[in-house]
Amino acid sequence: MLRTSILLVTLLCNAFAAQAESNPDSLLLRSIYDEALTNGESYENLRTLTKDIGHRLSGSQSAADAMQWGSAVMRGYGADSVWIMPVMVPSWTRGSIARSTAYIGQKQVPLRVTALGGSVGTPNDQSIRGKVIMVKDVNALDTLRASAIAGRIVLFNRAMDPVLINTGAAYGGAVDQRGNGASAAAKAGAIGALVRSMTHALDTLPHTGALRYKDEINRIPAAAISTVDATTLSHALENHPDLEVSLQMNCAAFDDVLQGNVIGQWTGTEKPNEIITIGGHLDSWDIGEGAHDDGAGVVHTLEALRILKAIGYQPKRTLRFVLFINEENGNRGGKEYARKAAIENEESDLVHVGAMESDAGGFVPRGFRIDATDSATAIVRSWEGLFDPYNIHLFRRGGAGVDISPLKTLNPRPTMLGLSPDGQRYFDFHHSSQDVFENVHKRELELGAATFAAALVMLDQHLPSPQP
Amino acid sequence: MLRTSILLVTLLCNAFAAQAESNPDSLLLRSIYDEALTNGESYENLRTLTKDIGHRLSGSQSAADAMQWGSAVMRGYGADSVWIMPVMVPSWTRGSIARSTAYIGQKQVPLRVTALGGSVGTPNDQSIRGKVIMVKDVNALDTLRASAIAGRIVLFNRAMDPVLINTGAAYGGAVDQRGNGASAAAKAGAIGALVRSMTHALDTLPHTGALRYKDEINRIPAAAISTVDATTLSHALENHPDLEVSLQMNCAAFDDVLQGNVIGQWTGTEKPNEIITIGGHLDSWDIGEGAHDDGAGVVHTLEALRILKAIGYQPKRTLRFVLFINEENGNRGGKEYARKAAIENEESDLVHVGAMESDAGGFVPRGFRIDATDSATAIVRSWEGLFDPYNIHLFRRGGAGVDISPLKTLNPRPTMLGLSPDGQRYFDFHHSSQDVFENVHKRELELGAATFAAALVMLDQHLPSPQP
Repeated sequence: MLRTSILLVTLLCNAFAAQAESNPDSLLLRSIYDEALTNGESYENLRTLTKDIGHRLSGSQSAADAMQWGSAVMRGYGADSVWIMPVMVPSWTRGSIARSTAYIGQKQVPLRVTALGGSVGTPNDQSIRGKVIMVKDVNALDTLRASAIAGRIVLFNRAMDPVLINTGAAYGGAVDQRGNGASAAAKAGAIGALVRSMTHALDTLPHTGALRYKDEINRIPAAAISTVDATTLSHALENHPDLEVSLQMNCAAFDDVLQGNVIGQWTGTEKPNEIITIGGHLDSWDIGEGAHDDGAGVVHTLEALRILKAIGYQPKRTLRFVLFINEENGNRGGKEYARKAAIENEESDLVHVGAMESDAGGFVPRGFRIDATDSATAIVRSWEGLFDPYNIHLFRRGGAGVDISPLKTLNPRPTMLGLSPDGQRYFDFHHSSQDVFENVHKRELELGAATFAAALVMLDQHLPSPQP
Repeated sequence: MLRTSILLVTLLCNAFAAQAESNPDSLLLRSIYDEALTNGESYENLRTLTKDIGHRLSGSQSAADAMQWGSAVMRGYGADSVWIMPVMVPSWTRGSIARSTAYIGQKQVPLRVTALGGSVGTPNDQSIRGKVIMVKDVNALDTLRASAIAGRIVLFNRAMDPVLINTGAAYGGAVDQRGNGASAAAKAGAIGALVRSMTHALDTLPHTGALRYKDEINRIPAAAISTVDATTLSHALENHPDLEVSLQMNCAAFDDVLQGNVIGQWTGTEKPNEIITIGGHLDSWDIGEGAHDDGAGVVHTLEALRILKAIGYQPKRTLRFVLFINEENGNRGGKEYARKAAIENEESDLVHVGAMESDAGGFVPRGFRIDATDSATAIVRSWEGLFDPYNIHLFRRGGAGVDISPLKTLNPRPTMLGLSPDGQRYFDFHHSSQDVFENVHKRELELGAATFAAALVMLDQHLPSPQP
């Protein structure tokens, strides 16, 4: 019986796959992949973005330069109109100093650290020093006596779980230490926090990322520490529980700055009032070059426009290619885009029917995270046979991306897809000095761009229009 | 109607996947992946194989060293018995010289070349020099006048096709130039051959690999040339059709040497007369370290044994873990193994029911190539739901691997699976100086080992026994 049902499923799937290969969608996808793999410009665009412009922290001059560059590329690729949607973004600088030393018995061991994004500097930019309390859980601080924490530096040292196949899930299971650790430590009386870098790799790179201070709690300085150094400290604490660590940082926050989302629009031929948004985020952290995060998403987005123009595609709906600002430390670009979209939905005949994001790296594409209604999810999953020849198999429900996530509150709810590249290497580079152009693979980047463009076309062709 | 059938397939597939998550196979697979990702030894084994032993050309001392090491690891991991199956292998040395220069107008341009495996040296190890004729197809030589080829060096310069998604298919579509080019060129009167390296990358590395001389044809020296240099030559020929190239190599062949396949056996508890073979090849080319090709397959094989012992698995069938010799330049190890297997099938109650090979790199696993009867293929495909949580989705028919391919002539025909890792980066490193340990990713290697071990267990549990 079981065997029979297996065979039935297999036969049906095969029949469906065979049917898929000869339909117009199948031919369209083939032309998209062919264009990306033979005339692709994503790799050279990424080189320009990372090497000529460099990293692009919100509020920085290089972020402003990237906005100009992105606008120019969209115009060059033939967008009908290109504009900047103004967004006030935070301004924070890492400063020139991030020093930390462990004093272990007679030894002084330098620790590789960097400020978490948004951290205050150490008082008067001078060094602080204290004993260390190590915890593996932010909540563990609640169970400790105040005297065990007061005046100390808290080391948050829970590793990402290696048995989770999807590294994003392992990241999600550990990143509360980075986001909430500093405030939890401060509440318990600590003077500083070190957070184990969010990576499976045992490396000597600190991996930065945003923290969030709670309003009512004293702000203490917090730094990412490399996994190798966190492990060293952990071992040293076994024999030297009273070892001390110093920390000195001169990072600082300034007044907000006016920047914005870069938007290129290509007006639809049949349903121009229906909008599908596709994008990645232009800002990046200020160490490394933001090549995978999210230079890849930026050039995927630009390449989707280029490919569809090159193959002579005529969109039914209006396509908006968006380079969002400030994903890393505030998501103000994504929020502002959704706020304006809600107004468009309400005050005009425009309606946002779909959105796609690429913000998980430039690795070989595996599929999509689907954030949509049940019926829209079924439509997207019906494309599995079409994408199989391109080794695209993940059609799982999940968050589609930080930038577009605020759009999910719109009514009607847009169908949202997040590009899912393979994630095994992503956190090797993420938010570190190694997130550079050299660590992006040309063919993998091109395949990602093609997959992104292909899904855009499928949404354009097959999303049902909202019922009036 | 179409929509209905899509939904039906989706519902059936989902129901099947849900069913899969709670069955004993599912728990077994989870324990295998957990063991690989928490206590894995594949990465450190690969370090030993590549860094302490090094490359392992058939007939070399390091190949002999690797046989000893592989035997010792199998014993340490608890194989019931370990032995060497003797195989006479070719002995060929690259020599110390591989020089090539293009004389273009007044310029001398050094070309990056290395001997193709098995090539003769240049006469008396001295330089040859001649004009160049470039072709993109081995058969194109048939259409040229003899005077256009005689005394020349033929440049075979057809690139791997970039639009083929699976790089292995692109390799298969270009590699006849390497295998057959030298004999075709010699037949037409050429004095030497240069073959564009088999890689999508535009790089400065020559990628070696075996050529096959036809018995009746004069043997001329043949070298791989880097894709960058092949492209340079191609452009230069447009303006300088009479440019000349020199080539000097002192590679040489010697008498065959006695080496062998390393075999570790774990006797089955229920059907000890039924044998499932799992392996990779121990030999490698002599540039680089043979890390992906096929150090990965070697440590995948050893790790499968270690994992199954560690989780307390009791095999039903007899499992044979095999490190084959001489895959790269003769496949004599694979042929001898199949010859002995045929004798076992005929002259004893032993029967070879399954075989698996890992020889496509240490990258993130994507699935399996299935070489089996229709009914066995259907059984293997029924495992798709079980493997989905591990992002394993390729269950396509295809050759399972060079080493085990001679087993397919056995009667009854064994069910054969080849591990399919992602292939986008494979030919960046393949047969080049960059096929080194540093270019293998720890988690990806571990996931490959777990996937290999999981499929072995599934074959052991679910292959039907041959009908008497």
